[in-house]
Amino acid sequence: MIVILKPKTSKEQIQEVVQEVQKLGYTPHPIYGELQTVVAAIGDERTHHTLESLTVLPQVERVLPVQKRYKLVSRESKPEDTVVDVDGIRIGGENFVVMAGPCSVESEEQLISTARAVKAAGAKILRGGAYKPRTSPYEFQGLGREGLRLLAAAKKETGLKIITEVLSERDVEHVCETADVLQVGARNAQNFQLLIECAKSRKPVLLKRGMSERIEEWLLAAEYILANGNQSVLLCERGIRTFETYTRNTLDLAAVAIAKKESHLPVVVDPSQGCGRADLVKVLCRGAVAIGANALLVEVHPHPAEALSDGQQQVDFEVFSQLISELGPFLNAINRKLV
Amino acid sequence: MIVILKPKTSKEQIQEVVQEVQKLGYTPHPIYGELQTVVAAIGDERTHHTLESLTVLPQVERVLPVQKRYKLVSRESKPEDTVVDVDGIRIGGENFVVMAGPCSVESEEQLISTARAVKAAGAKILRGGAYKPRTSPYEFQGLGREGLRLLAAAKKETGLKIITEVLSERDVEHVCETADVLQVGARNAQNFQLLIECAKSRKPVLLKRGMSERIEEWLLAAEYILANGNQSVLLCERGIRTFETYTRNTLDLAAVAIAKKESHLPVVVDPSQGCGRADLVKVLCRGAVAIGANALLVEVHPHPAEALSDGQQQVDFEVFSQLISELGPFLNAINRKLV
Amino acid sequence: MIVILKPKTSKEQIQEVVQEVQKLGYTPHPIYGELQTVVAAIGDERTHHTLESLTVLPQVERVLPVQKRYKLVSRESKPEDTVVDVDGIRIGGENFVVMAGPCSVESEEQLISTARAVKAAGAKILRGGAYKPRTSPYEFQGLGREGLRLLAAAKKETGLKIITEVLSERDVEHVCETADVLQVGARNAQNFQLLIECAKSRKPVLLKRGMSERIEEWLLAAEYILANGNQSVLLCERGIRTFETYTRNTLDLAAVAIAKKESHLPVVVDPSQGCGRADLVKVLCRGAVAIGANALLVEVHPHPAEALSDGQQQVDFEVFSQLISELGPFLNAINRKLV
Amino acid sequence: MIVILKPKTSKEQIQEVVQEVQKLGYTPHPIYGELQTVVAAIGDERTHHTLESLTVLPQVERVLPVQKRYKLVSRESKPEDTVVDVDGIRIGGENFVVMAGPCSVESEEQLISTARAVKAAGAKILRGGAYKPRTSPYEFQGLGREGLRLLAAAKKETGLKIITEVLSERDVEHVCETADVLQVGARNAQNFQLLIECAKSRKPVLLKRGMSERIEEWLLAAEYILANGNQSVLLCERGIRTFETYTRNTLDLAAVAIAKKESHLPVVVDPSQGCGRADLVKVLCRGAVAIGANALLVEVHPHPAEALSDGQQQVDFEVFSQLISELGPFLNAINRKLV
Repeated sequence: MIVILKPKTSKEQIQEVVQEVQKLGYTPHPIYGELQTVVAAIGDERTHHTLESLTVLPQVERVLPVQKRYKLVSRESKPEDTVVDVDGIRIGGENFVVMAGPCSVESEEQLISTARAVKAAGAKILRGGAYKPRTSPYEFQGLGREGLRLLAAAKKETGLKIITEVLSERDVEHVCETADVLQVGARNAQNFQLLIECAKSRKPVLLKRGMSERIEEWLLAAEYILANGNQSVLLCERGIRTFETYTRNTLDLAAVAIAKKESHLPVVVDPSQGCGRADLVKVLCRGAVAIGANALLVEVHPHPAEALSDGQQQVDFEVFSQLISELGPFLNAINRKLV
Repeated sequence: MIVILKPKTSKEQIQEVVQEVQKLGYTPHPIYGELQTVVAAIGDERTHHTLESLTVLPQVERVLPVQKRYKLVSRESKPEDTVVDVDGIRIGGENFVVMAGPCSVESEEQLISTARAVKAAGAKILRGGAYKPRTSPYEFQGLGREGLRLLAAAKKETGLKIITEVLSERDVEHVCETADVLQVGARNAQNFQLLIECAKSRKPVLLKRGMSERIEEWLLAAEYILANGNQSVLLCERGIRTFETYTRNTLDLAAVAIAKKESHLPVVVDPSQGCGRADLVKVLCRGAVAIGANALLVEVHPHPAEALSDGQQQVDFEVFSQLISELGPFLNAINRKLV
Repeated sequence: MIVILKPKTSKEQIQEVVQEVQKLGYTPHPIYGELQTVVAAIGDERTHHTLESLTVLPQVERVLPVQKRYKLVSRESKPEDTVVDVDGIRIGGENFVVMAGPCSVESEEQLISTARAVKAAGAKILRGGAYKPRTSPYEFQGLGREGLRLLAAAKKETGLKIITEVLSERDVEHVCETADVLQVGARNAQNFQLLIECAKSRKPVLLKRGMSERIEEWLLAAEYILANGNQSVLLCERGIRTFETYTRNTLDLAAVAIAKKESHLPVVVDPSQGCGRADLVKVLCRGAVAIGANALLVEVHPHPAEALSDGQQQVDFEVFSQLISELGPFLNAINRKLV
Repeated sequence: MIVILKPKTSKEQIQEVVQEVQKLGYTPHPIYGELQTVVAAIGDERTHHTLESLTVLPQVERVLPVQKRYKLVSRESKPEDTVVDVDGIRIGGENFVVMAGPCSVESEEQLISTARAVKAAGAKILRGGAYKPRTSPYEFQGLGREGLRLLAAAKKETGLKIITEVLSERDVEHVCETADVLQVGARNAQNFQLLIECAKSRKPVLLKRGMSERIEEWLLAAEYILANGNQSVLLCERGIRTFETYTRNTLDLAAVAIAKKESHLPVVVDPSQGCGRADLVKVLCRGAVAIGANALLVEVHPHPAEALSDGQQQVDFEVFSQLISELGPFLNAINRKLV
């Protein structure tokens, strides 16, 4: 860490900082500049006390960390790409995988028809929410266990793998009976107890970025899963909250490139949540491919106008099918192949 | 709801929207403007299907809700101020309550000395984290059950009431044995399963605003607690995430005034998280009082420079004591009395 | 406009709103809902008084505009794509144009060598700042008129067209002697006097989106230029300010798609400002192409590490050349051709 | 500056950075940590080349500045409070000054009646926009020179000093004939040419914070004015742009405290722009006083519902008068006196 002292700090005050740095386990190394002194604190920041608390000393201006805080998720600890195996579907490397399905599981007919349509269009994994985190307690909260049962039926019928959201630590076990990938949503992006529980299940986990989560924090949330013994993590960019109101969120495609640079984990893009508008989904999928995403998570519904949740961002079967077929040249351009 | 159609929409297309509005349970009422038609959809929005999904129709420009989405937390449903009773300490109305203590419970000596100091200065409720949600898995995660034991001891020793954070649904029951108020942190602000579990405990719940939570969403999260049978909710403004980097968060004091206007629930301000800097805590407490907050939640530590978490935003005993004593004229100015 | 009244508003209070709406020039049309009344105000919002001021009436909850506020820039007023002619280089439609060059003009050698390199790589327009808006008054402010002279020399030498930023109304006239495109930067995105002066010059104007400008506001700033008689506007997305700190700005690629949908004007992407990091420029260029941008504005410098401004986001000749040559398959995928 | 190198950087690569640091005019001082090397670069950052450009070197992780970038505005260069003299009205220190008046000058009657009312309530400076920066070119743009004439008349009539916004470098000279304080609005917060022109006028300048301007950038914009020879600057907090939609902006009252801590300049709060809602103005004025503001800038209109601009955030005479009279106890609490 680097401790920056204020201008005109006395020798005694510098000494006080030096001693405090030592007391907290680092080797202090003061550097006397023209106008300001800085104290470099040598030691592994990930195993020592943080020094940010030293900013309460009146002579300390700021404290700057040197090291990255994530370890297991970093390219430095594992340079080669991780490929996550979802019951035979491999996500990562040159493969490109499409996950699609309705925002919420609403009925057998809705789910099975969607499963068939997305399979025909090229998707390998079916999404569908059985437990729905809704802003208002008066909104449709999902079908729960009945939704899981319908997902299992759709899996049996179509052979698609299943991804579905888990909202509660208590649900992890029984959701795992149906799900091939556990989805952790943006609202639970830093619900560390849920992350740890998902880690223990050993199922692949798709971890959405929180609405106002910095990339470093997103990677540290993934670090919780890896540090608890589960290497099968899919990072999912789904838009961040900004001042813009035309879209529901601002899809941060640069974050995809950064996550791939900083981490070995595969990165998924959710264009549906990412903009909250069906009419932008197709073009955002192209951007996601071009920027290097490993997979897409797209919301598809037989009749979006009548969907029980987030209809405005769901595409119908025809749009979805066209969208996937038109992705080909973009996948070729970046040397990825749709599996 | 108001469905705004695009300019130059044909009669047939208008009719299609009218029918869809009807099908989804509202009484449609089209208004033909000079340039654009809008369809007013009459019906209780809180019990009907949302119409936002209609934006997938090509002729629909936007859909605007009319009603507020929260009910039980609103002034409309309960015009008079709610006073939350924390085992005899009444928060709300003309009372002003100070909650204070360390960010994390670290040791018996640290906690007891802090408890005595904050009590002497005027605090009535002791805060202290036993379970800590930390951005990195390698940071101090709190003492857990041992922390709760120390909080119980401090309560016995000083008579202060206890507020402590709960991170997991599974912890609610045993945390309730020690806590007089359950704290739900910003990272769990929309962890609805945790909110429901806290609601069921019937303990007062202090609900922090999420880092990027709109005021409406914050009130709807509180609505989850009231709708699950628990009226004792304290709303807590703790700063929102913005582009500013001088402070850790941007304390949104206007939100305090808005929450008090829109809702009957008491509002607490956390100036420590709100700015992340000990040197600003005093002045932000004054602002919080002047703007109408009902209580403060302040982080206090015997030696902030050596704190195991968030030392940079904790004040020491002397600063805290001075801070409280200097609040007097501001409390007088707004007709609140420190209890 | 739609005026939403609060629940339990009396007939007299509704009547007051109806009269006020009428007084301000609209035809009022009250709709009595189950719980709330709304008053639709019929009339062209772009030529009438706004009704948002009615929110000061105690019975008014909110006022919602119906119409879009931009006119000349909209697809509704001109469905076909605008092609902006930069002295023979046509930007828009199926053409794809690359503009490149140093952040600041620093010296003859720096500029001429860069001009030759970017031309060889495929750029048609040379960028280079002579007047630089710098956050601090102590930073390099550009070479001013000498910088313009060097740009003119580079143009003569290479035949490249010139784009350069104009900071002051007073500079527009003489900058036009050298520039083929006037660049208005993010800090002046709503400096309407400068926009009007640029409009009057009749030169093409590249209008950057402001750091916290909503898409609607960006289009309205362009509307100032069109409304003042200049149709040759290039919209430029250059990243918005968010909470993320890994990148300097958050490049909003969805905004490119939205601008193209809402407006007939060509859209340019500036990946250099957009992320503030040289190592991300290449991948963001791919994203920009895939999402439908009509042109790129890329910062290139012979020795970025020693650049007088923003070296961290400038690529060197080799990276730039490779970047352009690798864009080919992405341009093919979207049916654009590099001119 | 501190240059942080990546882990596993070779000796040769470290040497390359050391040489580059030297070449750019600093004395390099490498510190070999356990995992990473950092190179401290000793030299005055305000007179040297920035080293941030070194991040383009592959072995460089990040570059961190040590010094603050502002000088003349800082408490370090001038510890005591600056008092700005507005033609005899002294703003700063223990004085508290109220500036008030309509958003726009609309007519003689509107302006004179408002001037009388705000004077009677305790204001000393009349605000009123003659040149209005409006988001849309179709909105009321102000009366221009006629507005200035009316302001001059109101000054003659009431003796109030005048503050009015200047939008164009070309207007500074003639606006100075009427204005006692030049107001620079949020949209021009980094229009440095306008700031320099205002500086040269030697009139006091009220500098609003930009919508997404960090505090450091705001102070650096003020530095432009001081560095160009004008010490009479009033910093004005008017809300920043965030994700929140209930209010037009998020008033950042902590920024007031920070500006007062970092700088000797007086700080003004604009609660009208700060929230965009008349019903919150009173309570935000209290917060502004308690947090240490030196003055208020409040929008007042005889009939806000019919105002030609921003009626929703203007208070009427009665509310304004009550607001000021109720500020007394808060001013007493903080030892400020209304002048």
